[in-house]
Amino acid sequence: MAAAARCFAAAGYDATSLRHVAAEAGVDPALVRRFFGGKDQLFTQVVSALIDPERALAAVTVGPPEAAAERLLRYFLSLLGDVAQPGPFLGLVRSAVTSEHAAGLLRRFLAERVLGQIAATLRADRPDLRAALVASQLVGLAVTRYAVRLAPLTAADDGELAGWVAPVLQYYLTGAPYRQKEQP
Amino acid sequence: MAAAARCFAAAGYDATSLRHVAAEAGVDPALVRRFFGGKDQLFTQVVSALIDPERALAAVTVGPPEAAAERLLRYFLSLLGDVAQPGPFLGLVRSAVTSEHAAGLLRRFLAERVLGQIAATLRADRPDLRAALVASQLVGLAVTRYAVRLAPLTAADDGELAGWVAPVLQYYLTGAPYRQKEQP
Repeated sequence: MAAAARCFAAAGYDATSLRHVAAEAGVDPALVRRFFGGKDQLFTQVVSALIDPERALAAVTVGPPEAAAERLLRYFLSLLGDVAQPGPFLGLVRSAVTSEHAAGLLRRFLAERVLGQIAATLRADRPDLRAALVASQLVGLAVTRYAVRLAPLTAADDGELAGWVAPVLQYYLTGAPYRQKEQP
Repeated sequence: MAAAARCFAAAGYDATSLRHVAAEAGVDPALVRRFFGGKDQLFTQVVSALIDPERALAAVTVGPPEAAAERLLRYFLSLLGDVAQPGPFLGLVRSAVTSEHAAGLLRRFLAERVLGQIAATLRADRPDLRAALVASQLVGLAVTRYAVRLAPLTAADDGELAGWVAPVLQYYLTGAPYRQKEQP
């Protein structure tokens, strides 16, 4: 699994083969195929090891509801790891942005295993759209802070980012659209 | 320029050469080099043709301040084009996510030419961080709606998305962090 995560992160989904993964892990390709099936299944396994649907769901449902967004954000930031040395999650986003096929696998995984479950816990209208909007902000933070590395985002620590972004996630989870915020 | 945008979108920054761009445009490679200099300059030219800093800035500054975020969002959605057939902007995001070098060029362009200018117009504390947070939500929407294609985001029309996302951008531009939203 670790070897597969490294291969997908370094070469992207399309350029990675079961043979590469086997070489990286120092085992026979037939062994990889026997345990994981095809490349699709292997990729989906790597994704679900990185984004644990039960932990993501627990972040939203276990604890005071008004802090659900902050727990979800902090779980997500812990997935991404250190700003200076991002973990394999970023490779996943890279694979999905560059391969139609990997994007489809990630979409199905997110929609069925993570966002759909989170949406099912929401007692508000449009739960599927709300969960997808949460994903849009989290993925955007991953790309701009860890891949493009915009300086104000890499300089901010996790607590400061949570102060800005958690209210946005909370609004997507439970708020109403078109509401104007007060000016400071 | 159009040929270069197609090459960067299809092959990514690293795999595109001035020779490819010249072949795509049907001209001599020396001509491309004479007009644009190196690959870096060509990429930056393509970026600034796609994200016109003056139009982005005008979206924020021209018109009622309370609608600045909605104008900026609608300008950004117009850049991305049709959901079913996204334009060259998505190729740009792809290049930046997969190439460290393209990410650096995009970061410098965004920081110096777009976000820095927008930040300079804000009469609130932490203007650079605010502008970067705006970028995080816009880029995230681009990736999840146009690349990963999460169904609730592709099904929503631009007006509905603006209803949800514009208040978030407005909050990043002018609001205060840590403010809890009311429950519906």
